[in-house]
Amino acid sequence: MTRPLPPEGPVVIVGLGVLGGSVLRALRSRDPGRLVVGVDPDPLAAARALESGLLSTVDPSGDATLGDASVVVFAAPLSALPQFLAGPGAALPDHALLTDLVGLNAPVLNQVARAGFANRWVSGAPALVTPGTGFTMSNAALLDGVELRLSAAPEVPPAFRAQAEGFWRLVGAVPTWMDPREHDTQAAWAALLPQLVSNALAGALHAAAVPRTALSPEARRMVALAETRPERWSELLEAAAPATGTALTSVSRALNVVADLLARRQVDRIVEFMDRTQGWATEANSRGEESGGSQVTPGAGAAGTDPAPGSAEA
Amino acid sequence: MTRPLPPEGPVVIVGLGVLGGSVLRALRSRDPGRLVVGVDPDPLAAARALESGLLSTVDPSGDATLGDASVVVFAAPLSALPQFLAGPGAALPDHALLTDLVGLNAPVLNQVARAGFANRWVSGAPALVTPGTGFTMSNAALLDGVELRLSAAPEVPPAFRAQAEGFWRLVGAVPTWMDPREHDTQAAWAALLPQLVSNALAGALHAAAVPRTALSPEARRMVALAETRPERWSELLEAAAPATGTALTSVSRALNVVADLLARRQVDRIVEFMDRTQGWATEANSRGEESGGSQVTPGAGAAGTDPAPGSAEA
Repeated sequence: MTRPLPPEGPVVIVGLGVLGGSVLRALRSRDPGRLVVGVDPDPLAAARALESGLLSTVDPSGDATLGDASVVVFAAPLSALPQFLAGPGAALPDHALLTDLVGLNAPVLNQVARAGFANRWVSGAPALVTPGTGFTMSNAALLDGVELRLSAAPEVPPAFRAQAEGFWRLVGAVPTWMDPREHDTQAAWAALLPQLVSNALAGALHAAAVPRTALSPEARRMVALAETRPERWSELLEAAAPATGTALTSVSRALNVVADLLARRQVDRIVEFMDRTQGWATEANSRGEESGGSQVTPGAGAAGTDPAPGSAEA
Repeated sequence: MTRPLPPEGPVVIVGLGVLGGSVLRALRSRDPGRLVVGVDPDPLAAARALESGLLSTVDPSGDATLGDASVVVFAAPLSALPQFLAGPGAALPDHALLTDLVGLNAPVLNQVARAGFANRWVSGAPALVTPGTGFTMSNAALLDGVELRLSAAPEVPPAFRAQAEGFWRLVGAVPTWMDPREHDTQAAWAALLPQLVSNALAGALHAAAVPRTALSPEARRMVALAETRPERWSELLEAAAPATGTALTSVSRALNVVADLLARRQVDRIVEFMDRTQGWATEANSRGEESGGSQVTPGAGAAGTDPAPGSAEA
């Protein structure tokens, strides 16, 4: 079903940070014969990548190499995409598969459509918290088994879609297809929200002078995300601000409801709430069907107006 | 330094749930010659413990065995303590070491003092999330390496303190001493708060119909606590309600501050906040010295009035 990559033409990786570097390493270990070119305007990043011995060429702008590419992986920040599309990207040959790891699919596909590349760009968002930033943090196994949510405009032909799937499988990821806006709203809830809740918990413990060592190993998992800084955090927050705000408010309200129940010593209702969330947390895949008529999609934003423990207040 | 356990007299374990059962298993594997008696009014729990072959006797009330005990481990709910102290416990010999695993030390020591046992009771609280409830969930390694916070009235003699430490080390725990109220306030922040934040996050995701499978493995750690129900949750909440309420409100406010910054697109300030919490989360032991003059203790409750990200609003 999956078309193999076209043998001719190099893979060009735009951006040699932790993600671009990891794609490079995975490609070199699984497809050693393929020419891989790195594009990075930062001389330090380029030097580090060249030192690794894995790249034959670094092309600071991409001008010299993009015309021959069979696959282009945009692994740079979203904010660098307009310049890329208007500059060297404009010279891309029609046959090249274009893909990215920005993390949010709708803003990428919007820009790509305005630049005239909608028919051959497959945007990818890995369900992954990067261990740090920069080429030195990259590793060949970073994408191994990681779910990669792919989105593309309807006009992208099946052959390109299959090629994109094949390319991402080659470097270890597990591709699945999703509507871009649905993905991005879900990412606000499933990635940005847990990260910020971990930071908020760590911040509250810090302000209360509770040392990290007072936490049990189980509780310490709750501040593990706060130890990391996902790559390109700021611009993901900017791009997903409305959904993330709704999600933050939803958790904040849930905590207030629990605090109110506690103040009224209605501990039984807190336990009921815990039972319900335990059900969700232990299910392999709950889609909200059991939430009793109040089923909402993340996109509807209704979760913010009706936090889960709210029903315990009725 | 640590006095060995007195060789004569059985260890009596009151309560044969996950904690009492685990103490029993650890004792049997590390001190096989010692007589261990179980006390549990629940015939089912008693039968399960007897079936394990590890107990020689189950004494439903304790009346027949407590008079000979050298060590009594109260591993039952806090709510069962008054009845125990007024009933069979009243017959305890003066030489017996009395200890518990209730989880909050101040309420135990208050009751113990009223019943006249203040001079030989050492209350213990394990920094542990139990994997479930009941004897069937017990295991010999449950307390291995687990920090156990011990508290006792000033009149408990050093020999008893040393004996308590020795007993708990024998079953695998790592005992440390703490003021009981300081411990209990810290437990509200370090144990109950992370648990409820995990539940609140799971509840919000559930209400928004975000499936658990949408979370990255890293984000999934944030809902791992919601999969468990710590033993005796309700009564710990009741007993630590004020401090837990303050802690919940503190995290709720922190989330609101982040949501406000996001609504105003002040993402730089969110990143600053993340940097500060990252510093706390990666420190082996931060005691709030670096929080810039606003150092507070959990007991002061001041954290609720000044959540960590608040300074980003100034």
